[in-house]
Amino acid sequence: MNDPGARLQDLIAAVPPFDPSAAERACERQAVLIKPPGSLGRLEELAVQVAGVTGDAVPRGDRRWLAVFAADHGVAQEGVSAYPATVTAQIVAALARGDAAAAVLARSVGARLLVVDVGIASPVAPGPGVRSCRVRPGTASILHGPAMTREEAFAAVAVGADAIAEVVGEGIDLLALGEVGIGNTTAASAVAAAMLGLPPAAVVGRGTGIDDAALVRKVDVVRNALRVNAVDRADPVGVLAGVGGLEIAAMAGAMLRAGGQRVPVVLDGFVVGAAALVAVALCPNLRPFLIAGHQSSEPGHAKVLAALGLSPLLDYGMRLGEGSGAAVALGVVGAALDLHRGMATFAEAGVDDATPR
Amino acid sequence: MNDPGARLQDLIAAVPPFDPSAAERACERQAVLIKPPGSLGRLEELAVQVAGVTGDAVPRGDRRWLAVFAADHGVAQEGVSAYPATVTAQIVAALARGDAAAAVLARSVGARLLVVDVGIASPVAPGPGVRSCRVRPGTASILHGPAMTREEAFAAVAVGADAIAEVVGEGIDLLALGEVGIGNTTAASAVAAAMLGLPPAAVVGRGTGIDDAALVRKVDVVRNALRVNAVDRADPVGVLAGVGGLEIAAMAGAMLRAGGQRVPVVLDGFVVGAAALVAVALCPNLRPFLIAGHQSSEPGHAKVLAALGLSPLLDYGMRLGEGSGAAVALGVVGAALDLHRGMATFAEAGVDDATPR
Repeated sequence: MNDPGARLQDLIAAVPPFDPSAAERACERQAVLIKPPGSLGRLEELAVQVAGVTGDAVPRGDRRWLAVFAADHGVAQEGVSAYPATVTAQIVAALARGDAAAAVLARSVGARLLVVDVGIASPVAPGPGVRSCRVRPGTASILHGPAMTREEAFAAVAVGADAIAEVVGEGIDLLALGEVGIGNTTAASAVAAAMLGLPPAAVVGRGTGIDDAALVRKVDVVRNALRVNAVDRADPVGVLAGVGGLEIAAMAGAMLRAGGQRVPVVLDGFVVGAAALVAVALCPNLRPFLIAGHQSSEPGHAKVLAALGLSPLLDYGMRLGEGSGAAVALGVVGAALDLHRGMATFAEAGVDDATPR
Repeated sequence: MNDPGARLQDLIAAVPPFDPSAAERACERQAVLIKPPGSLGRLEELAVQVAGVTGDAVPRGDRRWLAVFAADHGVAQEGVSAYPATVTAQIVAALARGDAAAAVLARSVGARLLVVDVGIASPVAPGPGVRSCRVRPGTASILHGPAMTREEAFAAVAVGADAIAEVVGEGIDLLALGEVGIGNTTAASAVAAAMLGLPPAAVVGRGTGIDDAALVRKVDVVRNALRVNAVDRADPVGVLAGVGGLEIAAMAGAMLRAGGQRVPVVLDGFVVGAAALVAVALCPNLRPFLIAGHQSSEPGHAKVLAALGLSPLLDYGMRLGEGSGAAVALGVVGAALDLHRGMATFAEAGVDDATPR
């Protein structure tokens, strides 16, 4: 098996279809819990969805993980971000220390945190909080050629899959995904434009908060990157290699591996959404395994969610990344599963059902 | 102090104004946390609001309580609910046992649960899970006269205030409110119609899930109740006594007492919203202390929130009551405060700030 593509084919083939029978049994359970039928609204739908993902009519939801993939981007040198590229490593260090947003939120919602360095430009000092799986020290600038080779894209996908495989060994019911990478909304814009067949101006936004002049430059960079790298959405790995990012490829691999284990995946914002476009294009079975954690204020994100057929759980104008929106949503999904599992039925509780009329 | 109204005047007078200086200091802290300014969106606004409520620029959010007030309604005999009145006591017993929705959710979001019997028709068997503070065994039917006397309304307000005073003694950072009471969306509709000056048809909904014929009857019941009891929104206690409910009055008292202690209050759905209309009419200082947990699918709720100037945190089509929506929202507010308190600043973390342009 020296063919790196063979590993990807295995990951894709391992994702089972959604289980409508488990979902149906979950619906039947919701109908007899001590509440008016349907009165938990979206929380009922979440429990039913997770039942269909897991194949278990009463799935567990307490073993929660937030996995954050980090890498640098050559395109950050093109003036597309409000922050210098040094910030990627600094935020990863803060995640490992526990005082960056996603680390605080993981604690807040009872999730364990996994941080994976897929290729930060200058390696983060080794420590217990970061898993080092560096494919290369950041991508090349997509303005002048491909972000990485096709083999490196396969390797980054494998990094994501292997990280989740390790977590599966420790026990996992729900996975939330996040990312850190200065410049990565530019790469995600190029991936989304390519995968959705949209002009760059329709998906490019202000990322961490660039001004009008930088926004014009960012649209130009994405347009030129897509001209220089003639990617084809029928070849999603080619899109990752041409205009993607190491952490974007790793997240696609993480989604595939989670799917293979029947673990629901809570998505964060625009960059995670771009990875989901690639993963679902590779493996359509994966689509019902995904939950949109929130609606980011990045304008391309709504288009990504519409293409995936997903409706966000939260809409708070967040645009921080790191998996911050997904982490808050993880608490909501966990609450939905706690209710599904923990509420009594009418028969168990001796509660009178609705008056027959 | 034999005047029962004097206690209410004391509760109202004890609610301080919102503290804009603490809110401003919280804004300044948000601006130096390691993230792009504004990138936590609504979560930043929540932290700033709670700072202004508490007067503390970096407020705690870990000591969370869900207080559920329960009572019966004479109007339940008029065919306005899908469930028999016996269900109020049965759900309270399930809350005390820990397997009703709000009990499961309180555990899920790390909140302690307080259940108060303000006047269930037949008393719940005494146990550790329910505080018995019965003003009367349910209200009289508002279709034929007042729900209760004015003195009973004052007493129910005091029950709510006293319950929160006890919780304050144990330590509380955030309070979520919920209710149980078969028939109480009818009472809440009458209160909301009276307080908002709207026709009953504009606020009456299906509650626990009545059919079309019962919905027509429910509108008639509310219209006739408002004709029989000539309430005046300039006298909010008169509205409570005339067409309200014991748990609605108690929740108004709970809000006032929480306000007096500078504790933010997360509201649940339509019935809690009706109590908030009364509380804010009595004490305008209280308005910025309130957080709308969710948007219920009960049609009058959107009108209540608009009148209170509140925007809901969640919109999941929930209509269960018990504080279920408020409890899920409590997790979100808690996450916002955890971020505000737990994230490092740029200076603390040695993270480079935005590139000057």
